[in-house]
Amino acid sequence: MSTSADIDREEGLVLQPKFDASGLLTCVATDAATGEVLMVAHMNEEALSKTIASGEAWYFSRSRSALWRKGETSGQTQRVIEMRIDCDQDAVWIRVEQQGAACHTGRKSCFYRKVDSSEGKARLVPVDAARLFDPEAVYRK
Amino acid sequence: MSTSADIDREEGLVLQPKFDASGLLTCVATDAATGEVLMVAHMNEEALSKTIASGEAWYFSRSRSALWRKGETSGQTQRVIEMRIDCDQDAVWIRVEQQGAACHTGRKSCFYRKVDSSEGKARLVPVDAARLFDPEAVYRK
Repeated sequence: MSTSADIDREEGLVLQPKFDASGLLTCVATDAATGEVLMVAHMNEEALSKTIASGEAWYFSRSRSALWRKGETSGQTQRVIEMRIDCDQDAVWIRVEQQGAACHTGRKSCFYRKVDSSEGKARLVPVDAARLFDPEAVYRK
Repeated sequence: MSTSADIDREEGLVLQPKFDASGLLTCVATDAATGEVLMVAHMNEEALSKTIASGEAWYFSRSRSALWRKGETSGQTQRVIEMRIDCDQDAVWIRVEQQGAACHTGRKSCFYRKVDSSEGKARLVPVDAARLFDPEAVYRK
């Protein structure tokens, strides 16, 4: 059963983000021009606040346990055109202008392989997998 | 540092999904026609396998701890046009043909509110928020 707090969160117009046990929301970033999904990442409360306040995407890295402004090392920043939040306020969708490429491997999107199961067994097929930058040059200098 | 297993997962063409501690992947479903993000949900290994095998979206509900074929109660099914997996294989993106509406509240997308901060304070504004079905009628019969 839905509680009145659930209904308020779903139908209200107050931002009440529901962070998980680790203090995180899921964030999906899409290219504002093409609709392509660029990446899925996480935001803690501070990353969400900084994104809203600055109009630039900030995330929280689970592997590094660190707040992170997208592009602060690589230069591949994301300007937020619109942010939406989902029904239960545990996920946000940002439509962004991506500077260069979103993926740390140098591809425009992190989703550069499709799952093909046409012969009964799933395998991956590269798609839109050209590198726009060389990660060795960008991250190791 | 990246290990050779990390590089293999990022650059290889073998499906090696990286489930989290709860056995789940994040899944983003977008409308194949419009690019709109419809929902963010989770898949366990069985949901992923059934989605690949059937071409219909299956998820794992964290709140109900149950495998769930999208639309099995509501009739609002999702036919998968393409599935992609991200660089570290812990998220999938499915482009779907959505029958009716994706959100349990009756909206086409779960992202029916945008975050507006134009006056310095974040508030939510409905956008594309028309209900395509009545959740009371669909879920309580």
